[in-house]
Amino acid sequence: MINYDKFLSRAGITMQGSAIRKMGTVLAQNRDIISFAPGYPAPETFPWHDFQEITQELMSGSDGTVLQYGPTRGHRPLLEQIAGIMDARGVASDIDRLLITTGSQQGLDLIARVLLDPGDVVLVELPTYTGAITAFRNVQAAMEGVLQAADGIDLDALDETYLRITSAGRRVRIVYVVPNFQNPTGLLIGREKRRKLLEWADRRDVLIVEDDPYRELYFEDSATEADVRPMKADDTDGRVIYLSSFSKTLAPGYRVAWIDAPAALASKFEMAKQAEDLCTGALDQRIVYEASRRGILQRQIPMLRAHYQAKRDVMIAALTKELGAEATWPAPRGGFFLWVTLPPAIDSDRMIARAVEHGVIYVAGEAFFVNGSGRNIIRLSFSQPSHDRIREGVSRLAATMREELGVSAAAVARTR
Amino acid sequence: MINYDKFLSRAGITMQGSAIRKMGTVLAQNRDIISFAPGYPAPETFPWHDFQEITQELMSGSDGTVLQYGPTRGHRPLLEQIAGIMDARGVASDIDRLLITTGSQQGLDLIARVLLDPGDVVLVELPTYTGAITAFRNVQAAMEGVLQAADGIDLDALDETYLRITSAGRRVRIVYVVPNFQNPTGLLIGREKRRKLLEWADRRDVLIVEDDPYRELYFEDSATEADVRPMKADDTDGRVIYLSSFSKTLAPGYRVAWIDAPAALASKFEMAKQAEDLCTGALDQRIVYEASRRGILQRQIPMLRAHYQAKRDVMIAALTKELGAEATWPAPRGGFFLWVTLPPAIDSDRMIARAVEHGVIYVAGEAFFVNGSGRNIIRLSFSQPSHDRIREGVSRLAATMREELGVSAAAVARTR
Repeated sequence: MINYDKFLSRAGITMQGSAIRKMGTVLAQNRDIISFAPGYPAPETFPWHDFQEITQELMSGSDGTVLQYGPTRGHRPLLEQIAGIMDARGVASDIDRLLITTGSQQGLDLIARVLLDPGDVVLVELPTYTGAITAFRNVQAAMEGVLQAADGIDLDALDETYLRITSAGRRVRIVYVVPNFQNPTGLLIGREKRRKLLEWADRRDVLIVEDDPYRELYFEDSATEADVRPMKADDTDGRVIYLSSFSKTLAPGYRVAWIDAPAALASKFEMAKQAEDLCTGALDQRIVYEASRRGILQRQIPMLRAHYQAKRDVMIAALTKELGAEATWPAPRGGFFLWVTLPPAIDSDRMIARAVEHGVIYVAGEAFFVNGSGRNIIRLSFSQPSHDRIREGVSRLAATMREELGVSAAAVARTR
Repeated sequence: MINYDKFLSRAGITMQGSAIRKMGTVLAQNRDIISFAPGYPAPETFPWHDFQEITQELMSGSDGTVLQYGPTRGHRPLLEQIAGIMDARGVASDIDRLLITTGSQQGLDLIARVLLDPGDVVLVELPTYTGAITAFRNVQAAMEGVLQAADGIDLDALDETYLRITSAGRRVRIVYVVPNFQNPTGLLIGREKRRKLLEWADRRDVLIVEDDPYRELYFEDSATEADVRPMKADDTDGRVIYLSSFSKTLAPGYRVAWIDAPAALASKFEMAKQAEDLCTGALDQRIVYEASRRGILQRQIPMLRAHYQAKRDVMIAALTKELGAEATWPAPRGGFFLWVTLPPAIDSDRMIARAVEHGVIYVAGEAFFVNGSGRNIIRLSFSQPSHDRIREGVSRLAATMREELGVSAAAVARTR
C-alpha cells in the first residue's frame, strides 16, 4: 500500500475540510434533520416556471453555443447585463473590469492565487466567512483577524494590526471584508466607516476585497439602498476588488458570480481561471442572462427581501421565547444569518453531535475565527427552513443546549 | 494610477493566457472564420430533444435540490453512475475514490495544487495538452518533456529524463499522459507500453496522471475497446490518478467531469475543490445524471464515433489534395485532432495573422511543447465544422501557407 503523504505539496498537506461543507454532507445523508447550517436559499422562492420556460427555449437546439465551451471572461451579453447591475449599484463598470466566475468562491480563490504568496498576511474581520479562510489558507497565506464593532470592522484595530505585521517584516496586500449582512454575523459596515476604510487602504497602499453576495437582500423595515452602497462605488483609485453573485437572488445551483476589478487584475484573474475550469458553464450563464434580461431577477428581489425578513422575524421570536435568557444575538438588517452567543460553558463544536441526535444542525462559531475564539457561538441560517421548521428547530436547539449544560454542570459537580 | 504589478504573487506574475483560449476569443468575435482551433464538439450531435425533456422535468420545482448547493464530492446518484462507467472501462471503482469536477481542467488544477510544490518537476509528453501545461505552470511547477514514438511516450527517454532530474536533486512526483487520441497528436499509447509505463511508475515511485477525455471516441475502422483500456484498469497499486469527462460525449457546456484516484488523494482533491468552487453546478450534474440513467449517453457514443470518423476522413482527404506534397500527419484512430507538420520555413505562430485574414484558424504547435519546439507544426481540430467547411477551411489554409512560403522565399531571396 502506498503512503500518499509523501506525494503531497505543502499546500496539500495543510488542506482541511470546511465545517459548513461537512454539515452539508450530514444533511445530504439525513432527511429528518432541521438545518440551520449551510446558508442555502429557499428553493420555493426560485422562479421555477420562468426557468422552465427559459430552458425550454435554450434547449431547442437552434443555438449550439448554449452547450458549448465559451470565452473564459464569460458570455458577453451576460457581462453587459452585469455592467448594468453594477451601474444600478452606483459603480460605473466596464467589460474590461468584469469576469464571470464559477460562484464567488472561485472569485476568492482566483484572488488568493493571483495576489498572495505563502506567508503573506490577509487582514480579515473577526469573525469572517469560512470560504474565504479556506481560499486564503490554500495558497498558504496567513490571516490576522480584526475585531468588529456594531458598525463593522474596527479601524483603529485594523491599523494597529497592519503596523504590527508590517513592522515585523511581513507583507499585507489585501484586507477582506463582507460589508453587507456579513457572513456570519449579519452586520453591516456603516456608511461613514466605508469611506474611512477606503481612505485607510489608500494611505496604507492595500487592496480591499469587497465580498458582496447579500446586498440585494436588505430588509426594508431597517435598511435601505443607501446602507448597502458598495465601497467600489466610491473607489476612485482602483483599490477595490468587488465580488457579487446570482446565487442568493436566482439560485446557487447555477454557479454564476462575478468579479469587478481593475482591468490589469481582471486579466490576471482570467488567466488563473483558464487553468481552473476554462469557463463557467454555458447553460448556467445563458439561463442567468435570460432571467436578468427578461426582468425576472428584478422581480424576484423585493419578494426575497420580504421572504427572508419574515423568516428572520420568526427565528428571532423563537429564540427569544426559547433561549432569550441564555443567548444573545445582533438583529440582522438583511441576509441569511443569526449569530448567536450561547452561555460560556457551551462548546458549540462539541455540542454538534448532541444537536444531530436532537435533529438540528448549525455551524460552530470557531470555524469563522482565524484566532481560535468563538467557542460558545453558533451561526444559524434562517434562509431555507419554513416558519414551522424554524420554530421546531429552535426548540430542538434549546433542548440540546439545556441537556449539554446539564451534563456539563453534572461533570463540574462530580469533579468538585 | 496604481501599478498593480507589485501586488501580484509569484504565481500571478508568471500567469499567461492560453493560445487555444485566445483563438476561442478570436472566434467569438468573428463569425466568418472557419475554426480548426479549439477542440469543440459538434453541437448538431448533441441530443437537444432529450435535454429539453430532461430540463423540463427538472425545472418543475418538485425537487428544490436541482438548483441548490450540493456536496463537494458531487451528486451521489451521478457518482454511482460514474462508478458504473468506470466498471465498463475495466476499473473496479468506488464512491470513495470518485470526485466530480467542473470539467477535467479543474481536475488537472486540483492535482497540481495538491501534489506539486514550486520547482517540482512534472514529466509530460512532447507535445502535450496546453491545459495541463497551464495548470502545472500556475503552481510554479517545472515541466520536462519526453519524446513520443508512434505508440506513445518513449520509455527509455522517460527513464533517462527521470534520472537526469532526480540526480540533479529535483523531485518528480508525477508523469502526465493522455493515452487515448492524445491532444494534440491524436496518438494512442500501445497496449504493451501501458503495462510497461505502470511498471516504470512503480519502480521509480512516481504517480501517473492519466487524462482520458477522448476514449469513447475511437474510430471503429482502426481501433477497438481493447486499444483504449485505461492504465487505471491494471493499476493494482494505486499509482494512477484517472480523469475523464462528459464534455466530449454529452456537451462541454455542462462542465461535468470526474477524477478516479486513490481514496486518500480523492479526499485531498475534495478539500482543494471546496476552496475553488464549493461544488460543481447542480443542474448540470442532474442533466448529465439523467442522460446517463436514461441511456442517452450510451446511445450517443456509437453515433459520435461515426460522426467524427467521417470528419477525420474528410479532413485527411482535403489535406492530401491541398497539402499532400508539403505536409505530413499521423492518421488518428479516434478523437478530435490532426497534428500537421508543415515545411520547415513556416513559423505557424507568426502565420496566424495571415490565416485569420484568409478566414481560417488553428492552434500553433509551439503551445503544446514545453521545450520551445514545434514551430512548423499546427493542430487542426476536425470536430466542429461541417464537411464542406472542413474542405473550404483546408483550402484557405493551403492558400495561407503558399502565400506565407512565397513571402518567406521572397524575403530570403532579397537578403541573398
